[in-house]
Amino acid sequence: MAQLSSASSRTASFILRILAFAFSLISLIVLATNTVIAIDSDYDESKVHFQDFYAYRYMLATIVIGTAYSLLQLVASICTAVSGREGILVLAFFGDKFMSYVLATGAAAGFGVTVDLKRITDAEGLEMSKFYEKAYASASLLLLAFICTAVLSIISAFILPRRSL
Amino acid sequence: MAQLSSASSRTASFILRILAFAFSLISLIVLATNTVIAIDSDYDESKVHFQDFYAYRYMLATIVIGTAYSLLQLVASICTAVSGREGILVLAFFGDKFMSYVLATGAAAGFGVTVDLKRITDAEGLEMSKFYEKAYASASLLLLAFICTAVLSIISAFILPRRSL
Repeated sequence: MAQLSSASSRTASFILRILAFAFSLISLIVLATNTVIAIDSDYDESKVHFQDFYAYRYMLATIVIGTAYSLLQLVASICTAVSGREGILVLAFFGDKFMSYVLATGAAAGFGVTVDLKRITDAEGLEMSKFYEKAYASASLLLLAFICTAVLSIISAFILPRRSL
Repeated sequence: MAQLSSASSRTASFILRILAFAFSLISLIVLATNTVIAIDSDYDESKVHFQDFYAYRYMLATIVIGTAYSLLQLVASICTAVSGREGILVLAFFGDKFMSYVLATGAAAGFGVTVDLKRITDAEGLEMSKFYEKAYASASLLLLAFICTAVLSIISAFILPRRSL
């Protein structure tokens, strides 16, 4: 029974790590390429980059850290599966916990700034809906990566003390 | 040894719950009273409420839920201390985990929107620095409440399987 649940939790963890990596990588690409030509009510054009807003810069930082972490954990879980040895469970426990907070704050900052920025620029008659669509898409993907990491964090919390105590 | 660590983790939990409740309550008061008269470059005045921005509304929602939860857990831990019985550890484990995410996203949305809103209104020559000071104060207090809940979540993760397995 313990053997079975250990094997199934390892498989679930592996799938979740692949998903977390994929979501954060796509989120990174979508955000990093988010640049539009904004058109105001006088038909004047201006270029808007995601770097123009601090919240998106923070979001990018969280995505980069999240992608690197999930890639690292993915490689580590392949190594432990191949060698048949135990991974460093305490690292996974604190790592997953910390990373899930980082991703949650990144997604929240992204959503928070997008919803109010959109209202302000809409009120000013600035047409840049494509920019917000991509920002929402990136934040949503980051939210999915966060959910995967949060579930991983629950799994690693249950695995950790069972073996170390 | 186990007795000692159990007693000390219970004391630490109790102190952290008091702190989390205090921080979120003060954060709630600071945010809920955040209204200023904004003065633009033509000396025109306009009233700005925190409710004018969706990110602050979300932040308020997270603070209200956080305050209610920490009060509930505080009462529950007093009850279990008085009766000498065990509390419902699974509820604390998932509750602390969930609430720490809720508070983290609330603080992140608050910080994210404040930093970029301030830059936009400063560029427009709108004087409302008092508003942002209170917004930052509220978000910082919420961040402290989150840190307390995150540590509680780690403690409850270590307590839970030790007793239930």
